[in-house]
Amino acid sequence: MSVITLLTDFGLRDTYVGQMKGAVLAIAPSATIVDLTHLVPPQDVQAGAFLLWSAVEVFSHGTIHVAVVDPGVGSPRRPVAIETKRGDLFVGPDNGLLMPAAERLGGIARSVVLTQQPKSSTFHGRDLFAPVAAQLANGVALETLGEPASQLVESPWPRPSANIGEVIHVDTYGNLITNLPAARLPTSFRVLIGQTQVAQAPFYAAVEPGELLALVGSAGLLEISARNASAAAITNARRGTPVSVERR
Amino acid sequence: MSVITLLTDFGLRDTYVGQMKGAVLAIAPSATIVDLTHLVPPQDVQAGAFLLWSAVEVFSHGTIHVAVVDPGVGSPRRPVAIETKRGDLFVGPDNGLLMPAAERLGGIARSVVLTQQPKSSTFHGRDLFAPVAAQLANGVALETLGEPASQLVESPWPRPSANIGEVIHVDTYGNLITNLPAARLPTSFRVLIGQTQVAQAPFYAAVEPGELLALVGSAGLLEISARNASAAAITNARRGTPVSVERR
Amino acid sequence: MSVITLLTDFGLRDTYVGQMKGAVLAIAPSATIVDLTHLVPPQDVQAGAFLLWSAVEVFSHGTIHVAVVDPGVGSPRRPVAIETKRGDLFVGPDNGLLMPAAERLGGIARSVVLTQQPKSSTFHGRDLFAPVAAQLANGVALETLGEPASQLVESPWPRPSANIGEVIHVDTYGNLITNLPAARLPTSFRVLIGQTQVAQAPFYAAVEPGELLALVGSAGLLEISARNASAAAITNARRGTPVSVERR
Repeated sequence: MSVITLLTDFGLRDTYVGQMKGAVLAIAPSATIVDLTHLVPPQDVQAGAFLLWSAVEVFSHGTIHVAVVDPGVGSPRRPVAIETKRGDLFVGPDNGLLMPAAERLGGIARSVVLTQQPKSSTFHGRDLFAPVAAQLANGVALETLGEPASQLVESPWPRPSANIGEVIHVDTYGNLITNLPAARLPTSFRVLIGQTQVAQAPFYAAVEPGELLALVGSAGLLEISARNASAAAITNARRGTPVSVERR
Repeated sequence: MSVITLLTDFGLRDTYVGQMKGAVLAIAPSATIVDLTHLVPPQDVQAGAFLLWSAVEVFSHGTIHVAVVDPGVGSPRRPVAIETKRGDLFVGPDNGLLMPAAERLGGIARSVVLTQQPKSSTFHGRDLFAPVAAQLANGVALETLGEPASQLVESPWPRPSANIGEVIHVDTYGNLITNLPAARLPTSFRVLIGQTQVAQAPFYAAVEPGELLALVGSAGLLEISARNASAAAITNARRGTPVSVERR
Repeated sequence: MSVITLLTDFGLRDTYVGQMKGAVLAIAPSATIVDLTHLVPPQDVQAGAFLLWSAVEVFSHGTIHVAVVDPGVGSPRRPVAIETKRGDLFVGPDNGLLMPAAERLGGIARSVVLTQQPKSSTFHGRDLFAPVAAQLANGVALETLGEPASQLVESPWPRPSANIGEVIHVDTYGNLITNLPAARLPTSFRVLIGQTQVAQAPFYAAVEPGELLALVGSAGLLEISARNASAAAITNARRGTPVSVERR
């Protein structure tokens, strides 16, 4: 029984996500489908790449991840499927969306440009990516689904330089997630975001309600949070706000 | 393993949808449940009918669709189950909600007025429609669940006349979906919506960002869209806005 | 095939819920996962307790319910698993969240404080509660997962006194759900909420559109509703507004 995850910017008001699931189940009726999120800001490939990256590690090796944030649908942008070195599969547009997640799972082992012709020019999620994922779930070999892909479009993420990174995602709670991985952080540090200094703390309850703290979050990245409050509201930071780290 | 889809106006803040799923799984533990959407505008039967219609075609023959947008719950409005000529099943209130979708799947072969007495007068989704769907998933015959229904309430959709239709749905992206099916359109055409002329284009990327285009959307209906922008915001159109088509 | 329900305040914009599902499926690949809701107001344990309570009764005996509304995550608040007299299982923080639901299902038969160490200090939903639920789904015995728990934190719900209760939840439709169970109500009654008198009625369609009515709702509690309108908007009531019942 394969697990197929879905991540899109389709929202929840329409039936687009339900239609993708219908397309999967018509081909792979025993697949287990898991929603990662469908509230990626419309056509925001960078946000989608972060959200996909945030979710994939906990899934079993061999999971099939379908992601659709696709401003270029219907244009010549290439549809692709990727196999990671860990054995996971990704299906979606070749616009960088899949890259950080594929790197997180060990990097790309093989990739193909999908050659099936979707029956609509506007809904490749339902008409191309979902059927391809279902075929992979049924054991169809990756290389039979397309031509080898060269030069995939790179990740849309900004890379941190030295001790300076930036906010790459603001979550539901107002936590500020940066592009600084735990491995870049000194054992003991503090953070400067805008004009605000933030002290390191091991967990939310280690500071007073409403107070800011800096910690390595559940994604393995430096986060700036506030106990029972929104760090985004307190600091006025948003995606792209620079964050620097000093050793203490 | 049967697929049961759910479409309601219950929203996602409460547990109403979860309760319907519990009611299904208590009777049919191996059913695969798929959400179509639960964000139909409250008690808006026309919107619900559109959304159900939009989703059903991609599902396998024999899928069971439960839809609940039901301003008359607890009144004498009839609860019904319908079998289409294609072998699909619909369960819900007899208020027109199910009709466009049933027609899309070949039309009604048989229908019954459900005779089970729900234990609550306010939550037929959980207490009547979900259990009936689960029984159908378990192979219970339609005709044992009620009395033959005559004269179902008709579709709430406006029918287009000649080359003049109207907007019947505005989706998450601001795409304007009309009631004009592809079969009614000339090969080459343009569209007038309000004072705005819109040219035909084959896909979003064929026009400049922010520009309007008219195309046959993924549902097989004429849509007016804008590349990377909201056609609804640009044209000020809403549900009910007339749309006319001229041959070019 | 076990059913595992999830209720959180994680929202739907991030992938937190998807990550919990990945953690469940990595251990119990054939579990059926049902979302109750993920839109509990952030860190509102009382609202979460109501919503969990509202949903559990319809599920089969033996269902595993995971609930995470957890302002104290990372602090010494205890993680627990509970077995009800009916054979259902609950997993979550020991902050009262699980208590009304556990009482609704017959009360607590046994409970343990979980002893597994989660790998993150901020995301026990994914790193502790989901894996524990999956282990329970796989048949691992409750008592092997922790030490017997004494003195669980009590329910956060206000208890009604005599004929005076209060609004404990306002749902999507603006229905006002009170803490007065059906068993406390006379056969014939009316309700006073603020300055507004509301008459009893058997179902919505028994009153005129826009009119208020008092009835026993689908949860077995006194509700104040309005036909095709929001009782919350009409009465200006909110959670905590007193409600009194008089015999007629």
